[in-house]
Amino acid sequence: MDIAFADVGSHKVVRVMGDVDLYNVGDLKRAVFELIDEGEVESLIIDMASVNYIDSSGVGALVAAQKKMKTQGGKFGLLALTEDVLNILKLATLDQFFKIYESEAALP
Amino acid sequence: MDIAFADVGSHKVVRVMGDVDLYNVGDLKRAVFELIDEGEVESLIIDMASVNYIDSSGVGALVAAQKKMKTQGGKFGLLALTEDVLNILKLATLDQFFKIYESEAALP
Repeated sequence: MDIAFADVGSHKVVRVMGDVDLYNVGDLKRAVFELIDEGEVESLIIDMASVNYIDSSGVGALVAAQKKMKTQGGKFGLLALTEDVLNILKLATLDQFFKIYESEAALP
Repeated sequence: MDIAFADVGSHKVVRVMGDVDLYNVGDLKRAVFELIDEGEVESLIIDMASVNYIDSSGVGALVAAQKKMKTQGGKFGLLALTEDVLNILKLATLDQFFKIYESEAALP
């Protein structure tokens, strides 16, 4: 995975190139949080056009980055999701959002 | 759409039967919020086994119910989602969770 930065209008765009998983999510977090900690980014956009797979640690990093940006009053968005990543995020965010049980027998 | 109630262990289960849309979401909200407002439900479970379609007003009602339950320190979950409703919720919660842009040209 490689990371590059670009300014697009008022947005700071972080281009992620390659898959994001437990083994390289630290690099992504470091890059993104350094940027956020500088406190000068009004709108952080993660460009995912070149990402075909992201695991739950990567989703967690995106969620954490969004949370931190919003805490600072900034904006956060995802750009150009591939079909595969879109599907992973759909399921991951649904799981984060609602607790879902398959049957009454599965209720705690 | 019809609504029925059941107690399953420590859970109050609200069984929704039929599709949820702008025209009947008020009935669902009334039933669910009356239950929540009584303040005696520790865990509210919405049984969606007999729902094949839910529109954005219905998703909004579920989100609002969950929020209110959590504010009261209670639990909230969805039970037995049909494939179609699962897909609708995946997209709706992803949209609620992240702002997603298809291209740089779409950035605000």
